[in-house]
Amino acid sequence: MQDYNIFKNLKINFPSQFVLHVELNRPAKLNAFDKISWQELHACFKQISLDSDVRAVLISGAGKLFNAGIDLNNLNEINNDTKEKDLARRALHTRKELLVAQDSISSIEQCDKPVIAAIHNGCIGAGIDLITACDIRYCSEDAFFSVKEVDLGLAADVGTLQRLPKIVGNNSLVRELCLTGRNFSSTEALNIGLVNKVLSTKEETLTEALKTANIIASKSPIATLSTKHLLNFSRDHSVTEGLIYTAAWNSAMLNSNDLMEAFDATMGRRKPKFSKL
Amino acid sequence: MQDYNIFKNLKINFPSQFVLHVELNRPAKLNAFDKISWQELHACFKQISLDSDVRAVLISGAGKLFNAGIDLNNLNEINNDTKEKDLARRALHTRKELLVAQDSISSIEQCDKPVIAAIHNGCIGAGIDLITACDIRYCSEDAFFSVKEVDLGLAADVGTLQRLPKIVGNNSLVRELCLTGRNFSSTEALNIGLVNKVLSTKEETLTEALKTANIIASKSPIATLSTKHLLNFSRDHSVTEGLIYTAAWNSAMLNSNDLMEAFDATMGRRKPKFSKL
Amino acid sequence: MQDYNIFKNLKINFPSQFVLHVELNRPAKLNAFDKISWQELHACFKQISLDSDVRAVLISGAGKLFNAGIDLNNLNEINNDTKEKDLARRALHTRKELLVAQDSISSIEQCDKPVIAAIHNGCIGAGIDLITACDIRYCSEDAFFSVKEVDLGLAADVGTLQRLPKIVGNNSLVRELCLTGRNFSSTEALNIGLVNKVLSTKEETLTEALKTANIIASKSPIATLSTKHLLNFSRDHSVTEGLIYTAAWNSAMLNSNDLMEAFDATMGRRKPKFSKL
Amino acid sequence: MQDYNIFKNLKINFPSQFVLHVELNRPAKLNAFDKISWQELHACFKQISLDSDVRAVLISGAGKLFNAGIDLNNLNEINNDTKEKDLARRALHTRKELLVAQDSISSIEQCDKPVIAAIHNGCIGAGIDLITACDIRYCSEDAFFSVKEVDLGLAADVGTLQRLPKIVGNNSLVRELCLTGRNFSSTEALNIGLVNKVLSTKEETLTEALKTANIIASKSPIATLSTKHLLNFSRDHSVTEGLIYTAAWNSAMLNSNDLMEAFDATMGRRKPKFSKL
Amino acid sequence: MQDYNIFKNLKINFPSQFVLHVELNRPAKLNAFDKISWQELHACFKQISLDSDVRAVLISGAGKLFNAGIDLNNLNEINNDTKEKDLARRALHTRKELLVAQDSISSIEQCDKPVIAAIHNGCIGAGIDLITACDIRYCSEDAFFSVKEVDLGLAADVGTLQRLPKIVGNNSLVRELCLTGRNFSSTEALNIGLVNKVLSTKEETLTEALKTANIIASKSPIATLSTKHLLNFSRDHSVTEGLIYTAAWNSAMLNSNDLMEAFDATMGRRKPKFSKL
Amino acid sequence: MQDYNIFKNLKINFPSQFVLHVELNRPAKLNAFDKISWQELHACFKQISLDSDVRAVLISGAGKLFNAGIDLNNLNEINNDTKEKDLARRALHTRKELLVAQDSISSIEQCDKPVIAAIHNGCIGAGIDLITACDIRYCSEDAFFSVKEVDLGLAADVGTLQRLPKIVGNNSLVRELCLTGRNFSSTEALNIGLVNKVLSTKEETLTEALKTANIIASKSPIATLSTKHLLNFSRDHSVTEGLIYTAAWNSAMLNSNDLMEAFDATMGRRKPKFSKL
Repeated sequence: MQDYNIFKNLKINFPSQFVLHVELNRPAKLNAFDKISWQELHACFKQISLDSDVRAVLISGAGKLFNAGIDLNNLNEINNDTKEKDLARRALHTRKELLVAQDSISSIEQCDKPVIAAIHNGCIGAGIDLITACDIRYCSEDAFFSVKEVDLGLAADVGTLQRLPKIVGNNSLVRELCLTGRNFSSTEALNIGLVNKVLSTKEETLTEALKTANIIASKSPIATLSTKHLLNFSRDHSVTEGLIYTAAWNSAMLNSNDLMEAFDATMGRRKPKFSKL
Repeated sequence: MQDYNIFKNLKINFPSQFVLHVELNRPAKLNAFDKISWQELHACFKQISLDSDVRAVLISGAGKLFNAGIDLNNLNEINNDTKEKDLARRALHTRKELLVAQDSISSIEQCDKPVIAAIHNGCIGAGIDLITACDIRYCSEDAFFSVKEVDLGLAADVGTLQRLPKIVGNNSLVRELCLTGRNFSSTEALNIGLVNKVLSTKEETLTEALKTANIIASKSPIATLSTKHLLNFSRDHSVTEGLIYTAAWNSAMLNSNDLMEAFDATMGRRKPKFSKL
Repeated sequence: MQDYNIFKNLKINFPSQFVLHVELNRPAKLNAFDKISWQELHACFKQISLDSDVRAVLISGAGKLFNAGIDLNNLNEINNDTKEKDLARRALHTRKELLVAQDSISSIEQCDKPVIAAIHNGCIGAGIDLITACDIRYCSEDAFFSVKEVDLGLAADVGTLQRLPKIVGNNSLVRELCLTGRNFSSTEALNIGLVNKVLSTKEETLTEALKTANIIASKSPIATLSTKHLLNFSRDHSVTEGLIYTAAWNSAMLNSNDLMEAFDATMGRRKPKFSKL
Repeated sequence: MQDYNIFKNLKINFPSQFVLHVELNRPAKLNAFDKISWQELHACFKQISLDSDVRAVLISGAGKLFNAGIDLNNLNEINNDTKEKDLARRALHTRKELLVAQDSISSIEQCDKPVIAAIHNGCIGAGIDLITACDIRYCSEDAFFSVKEVDLGLAADVGTLQRLPKIVGNNSLVRELCLTGRNFSSTEALNIGLVNKVLSTKEETLTEALKTANIIASKSPIATLSTKHLLNFSRDHSVTEGLIYTAAWNSAMLNSNDLMEAFDATMGRRKPKFSKL
Repeated sequence: MQDYNIFKNLKINFPSQFVLHVELNRPAKLNAFDKISWQELHACFKQISLDSDVRAVLISGAGKLFNAGIDLNNLNEINNDTKEKDLARRALHTRKELLVAQDSISSIEQCDKPVIAAIHNGCIGAGIDLITACDIRYCSEDAFFSVKEVDLGLAADVGTLQRLPKIVGNNSLVRELCLTGRNFSSTEALNIGLVNKVLSTKEETLTEALKTANIIASKSPIATLSTKHLLNFSRDHSVTEGLIYTAAWNSAMLNSNDLMEAFDATMGRRKPKFSKL
Repeated sequence: MQDYNIFKNLKINFPSQFVLHVELNRPAKLNAFDKISWQELHACFKQISLDSDVRAVLISGAGKLFNAGIDLNNLNEINNDTKEKDLARRALHTRKELLVAQDSISSIEQCDKPVIAAIHNGCIGAGIDLITACDIRYCSEDAFFSVKEVDLGLAADVGTLQRLPKIVGNNSLVRELCLTGRNFSSTEALNIGLVNKVLSTKEETLTEALKTANIIASKSPIATLSTKHLLNFSRDHSVTEGLIYTAAWNSAMLNSNDLMEAFDATMGRRKPKFSKL
C-alpha cells in the first residue's frame, strides 16, 4: 500500500473505497504554489497513477479559498533567482523552472485515474492551470475565478492558455478573461462550461464530487482508465488519428474479463466487482 | 437511379426532392447494431455519396427509440468470437472488427451530403457514436442519451471519444458523462450544444429536420458539398492548414456556373436551379 | 508615429491612450469588401503590429450595418476576371486572389495587439470571416449574422469554416448556419458563444468595447502580446506542443521588468506604467 | 483458401510456402495502368491482407518491361471523360478518379504483408508510384526509371511526390528527376537508395527477391506485420508519437507465443514454426 | 514585363528564354548577407513568383566565392542594435529581425518556379541556409561548405537545421557538421546528397545548371509549378495528407490544355509550346 | 560536482575537460540490457543534462562487443513476469515496462549535450535503438549490426523503427534489415549513412570520437545545446514549424555574450573561453 503521509503541502485520505481525496493544504498561504508544492503535486500524482487502490481522485483546497495562484517568492525564483547576467543563460534557467511547473500540472492530466476538482471561493492564476488539467470541475456558489497572470506582467505558462480554450465553448469570453484578468463568478463559469455543476456550499460541492467519484470508482478500472486516456489522446489529434490509436489500444483492452463481469452483474442485478489493475 | 431497397436493417425513402430519409429499422431489437447493421450503414452512405439525386440526408430510428447501442452478440463477436488462445492473434482479430465498425460510423461523416439526425427517446452507446458523425442534430423532448460503454466494461471506440468533445462546449460535462455513463436529458443535450433544437414530439422533430434538409437541398450542391468537406477538414487541422487546403479546393469550385445561377435567381427573385453533380 | 490617414475604406483614430479604433468606412456600400478593402485591411493591421503606441484595437462599421460581406464585383474579379479559357490557369488565378483575401483577414489574427469587434446590425458573409479573426466580440441587440456564402453558390473560404467551429460550443448549430445561410440573432450568437456580451445599442456596444480595450491597454504589453500569441499558437497545436512552445517563449519574456513594475504598482496601489515595446 | 485466378491484368502464384508472386500481366500494353488495372491491384492487395497463407509478396512485370506508367486512355478518362462543361463539376469528377488510383497504389503500402518489387527494364511514371509503395526494391542492371509525368503536362499524383523523397537520401536529385522527367539508370537508383540491390538479369533479380521473401516468410507473422505497420506509422509521425503508438500496439503483440517459439527454436537449433494469423 | 534592375546586391539577367539568372552580387564582401541583401532576396523571389516570363531560376555568386554567410554587422543589428535594457523587449526585437531573415530565405522555397543553385568555392553559414531552400544543387570541384554558425556562438536559425537533414541521407554526418562547423568538400557534399553533381569549374557548373534549367523551362509551367508545390507540401506532411492535398490540387490542374499539347507534341515529334501562366 | 560512481552497469570518466565518457559495462553479459541497465542509462543521462561540467558525451561498450541487445530475462519480465490471466491487465503491465525502456533510450536524445557513439564488434537489437538515439556514430571495421528483434518474434519497440529510417538514406535497405534481421557490416552502415566514419580498430574509433567530442566541447555550450535541441525539434516538425520555434528560441539565445567571446577569440586568434551553463 502506498504511503501518502509524506507530503507537507498536501493532505490525503480515502473518503471511500478506491477514492482518494487530495487536499491542497497550505491554508496560511491560501494554498499558493511554492517550489515544494510543484514537487509534491508531481510526486503525488505519479504515485496515484501506480496505486491500484485508487480508481478516482478528488481535489480540493483547505482553508479560506481553493487556490491563490503562484507564490510570488516562487515566481521570483523562476525568473530571478540567479546572479546570471548573460541573457541566454538566464533564459535557460527560467525555462528549466517553467518545465518543472508545467510537468507538475500535467501530472494530473497524465494520471491514469479520473480527477474531480471541488472548487470553493477563490481559484486564481495557477489555480486555473490546475483545474483545467482535471477531468471534471464542480464549484460552490461563492467561487470566483481569475486568469490573473496578465496582472503580474506575464502570460500564463503552465497550461491555462493551452487547456482552457479546449474545454469551454466561448472563445470570445476566454480571451476577454485571459487578457483582462478580471474575476468571473461561478455562474459565468457554469455558462461557459468551465464547471458543470454549482453547489450552494463548499461542503455540498465536496459531497457531490465524492458522489461522482464513487460512481466512477464502481466501474471497471480498465474502462475508466481507457476512457480518460483516449479522451486526452483524441483532444490532441484528428478524429482519424484518434480512431486509429483507439483501435490499437482497445485491441487489447476489449479482451478483458471486465466485460463479462459487467454483463453478469447487470443480468444478476448485482454490483460488479472488478479486480485491481 | 440508385436502388436503396437492398438493405435489411435500413428503410429508405425520398420524403422530398433531393432529400433521402434513412431509417434505422430493426425496431424489435431497438435498432441495436449487429454485424449486418455495420455493413449496411457503410454500404448505404457510400452509395449516397455517389448518388446525384441526393443533396441532404435525414436519419432517424424506427420504433420505440432511436438506437440502443451495440448488440451484445456483436460485442461478443468482436472480442470473443475466436477460439484463439494467443493474445496477439486475438488482439489482431479484435482490431480488425473494430476498424469495420469505425469505418461504418465514419462513412456518415465522409458522405458528401450533409446528414441531419432526428433523435427520439433513447440514444445509447453506439447511438452516440452515430449522431456525433452527423452534421446537425435535433431531438424530441423525451430524448435521453447515454455514453453507455463504461457500463459494459470498456471505453467507447467507434467515435464518441473523438467527436463528442469537439462538437460541444463543456468538456467537464463530457468527461462526467463518458466516465459515469449516466443518462442525460434533451435539455442537457441542448445546453451543451450536442443538439441545437428540441421539439415536442418525434413527429415534430422529423418535420423540423426535413424542413432544414429541404433548405439545404435547395442550395448549390457544389456549395453544400464543399462546406461540409471543408468543415470536416478544418476541424482536424490548424487554421493555417485549413486555409491553404481551402484555397486549393476553391480554386476549382469557385469557377462554377452555380455562382451565376445563384446570383441570377436572387436578382430575379426566383428559386435557383442547380444541375446535378 | 505611424500615419493612419492613408486609407480610403478605413477611418482610424485613438479614442484613448494606446487604443486604436479602426472603422470600416465604406457605408454607401454597406462596408462590403472590394479589392481595396482587402489590401487596406492587410496594410493597416501590419502597421498596427509594429506601432508601439497601440496596445489594443477596436473594430466597428460605419453607417447602417457592420459589414455586408464581399462586394459582388470583387467576387467576379476573383473567379471571372480573366479571359483565360484553360481551366488550370483559371484555377491558379482564382487561388492567387483567394490567398490575398485570406491574408487580409488573417492579418487581424496575426496582429500582435488584441482586437475587439463591436458589431451592430448586419454582419454577413465576409463579415463573419472578419469577426472570427478578432479576439473578443461584443454586439448590439439589433445585430444579426449570416454565413451567407452558401447562398452565393460557394463555400466560405476566407476563414469562417476554419475559425467559427473553434470559437463556439455548438457544432450542430454551426453546421446548420453554414449549410443553410439563415440569419441568426444576437441572442443566438450569445448562446453559442460567438459574442460574449450583447448591449442595447451600437453606442453602448462601442462604449463597452472601449472599456475592455482600455483595461487591456493598461496591462503590460509584453503580457498581452504574449497571451494573444500563445492563445493563437495553442489553438492549433496539442497541449504538449503548446506547453513546449510556451516554455521557449516565456524563457525570455519572464525576464522582463514589467513583472517588477506590476508588482510594485500593486503594492503601492498605483497604476503601473509599462515602457513601450 | 483465397482464389487469385479472378484477375485479368494480374497473374498470381505461390513460388514457395507463404510467398505470393503478383505479376503485372498486360505485356502487350507494357503493363500500363488502365481502369481495370487500378481496380484489380486494389482488390488483389486487400485480399492478400486477409490471406493467412501469405507472409511475403513479390511483385514483378511480365514481358518486355516492368511498367510503362499510366495508359493514356485512362488519363483521358480521368480528366476528360465527361461532357461536363462546368469547371467545378469536372474537377470533382477528376478528383474522384484520382482518389481511386491513389487508393489502388496505397493498398500495397497498407497491405499487412511486406512487398518486394523486382524491377527489370523500364519503370516509368505510375510504375514509380507503384514501387515506392513497396517495402523493398531490387532491380536488374538494364532497369531504367523515369518520373515521366512532367512530360505529360502534369505533376505526379498517385504517390511518387509523397513517397520518393522519404525513401531516398538525395533530395536534390529527386527534384531534378521529378522536374525534368529524364531517365535514370539502375546505378543511379542504387546510389540514391531507391533500390538496394542491382542484379545482372531479370531472372536473378527475381531469384534474389524470392530469397529475401522466403526469409521474411520464415519469421513470426506477428513480428513482420508489426514491423511493417510500425515503420509506416512512424514515417508519418514524430519520434515521440511513433513511440507512444508502438507502446500501445506492442502491449498486445508482445504477449504472443511466437516469442517463446522463436526462443525455443533458436535454443534447439531448429526452424521455428509459427501458427497462422 | 518585370524590371529586375532595381536591386543593389543582386545582378539579374535572362540567359535563355524563360530562364532567369540571379547572381549574388556583393563580391567585395564575398556576397555576405547584410540587411539589404535579406530585403532584396525576398523582393526578388516574390517578383519572380509572379513573372510569367520565368519558368526556371539559376542562382550563383559573383566573385571569389558563392557566399560567405551573414555579414557580422548584420548579426550585430539582429541581436545588439538597440539600447534596450529589458530582456523581453530585446528578445522581441531579435525575433522580429530573425523572422525577416527567415522569410527572405523561405521566399526561394515558396517561389513557384524551380530554383537551381550553382555553387563554387566557399558556401558558408547563411549560404547553406540559402542553398537548402533551392530545389537542385550543383557545385564545382573547388566548392567547400561550412555550417559555420556554431563558431559564431549560436545555432543556425534561418533554415539549415530545418532543411539540411530533410534533403540528405546521412544524419550522423549532418550533426557532426552542424556541431563542429568544420569545412566539408564537394565530394562529401556529393556523397551525402547535398549536391547531385560536381563539375570541374565554376563555368561548367553554370553551364550544366543552365542546361537543366532549360529542360525544366521547356516543360508545361503547370506541371513544374505543381511538382515543386506538391514536393514542398508533401515533405512537411504525412503521405496520406500529401495525397489528399494532391487530389484537391490536381482536380483543377489536370483539366489543362497542356496535357493535350504535351501529347500532340510527343506524337508529332515536335517541341511542345505551352501558354504562359 | 556530479557523482557518476553510483552506477553498476555503467563506467564513467572524463577523458578530457568537458567531455564525459560513458562505457556500457556489463561485459560478462555482452552489455545486454537488463532492468538495471534501463534505469541507470536513464538516470545517467538525466544527470548529464544538468551537469555544467559536461559539453559532449562519448558512449562505447566494454569488452568483446558494443551491445548484444536486450537481456532475454528482461524481455521475459516485460511480457511475462506476472501471474495475470486477464489480457487487458497483462497488456497494461507490458505497456508500462515498454515505456520505461523507451524513456531510457530517449533520455540520450533528450540530453542537452551532444552524444557520440563509438561502436565496435556487435551492435544488436536494443544496441541499434541506443545508437540511433545518439547524435553522431563512428564504428570500427569489425563492427556488425543487426535489427535482431524480428528473430525474437517481435517488432523493435524502443526506437529503431522510429529513428533509423529518419537518419539514413536508403529506406529499401532499412526495411530489408528490419524485416530479415540479417547482420550488416560497417561498410553497409557507412554506405547508408548509419555511421559516418569507419576506423580500423576500437581504439582508433574511440580516439576519433574523442577528437570530435573535444571540438564540440570547445564551442559555446549555448550554441551546441541549441543546435542539438533545434535539430531534434525540426526532425519532427514541418520546416515552417521548425522556423517558428527557432525564432522564439533564438530570440533569447542570440542575446548571449558567447557571440562576442567567439568573435573576439577569432579576431585575436585565441581559443574562446565560454562560461558554464
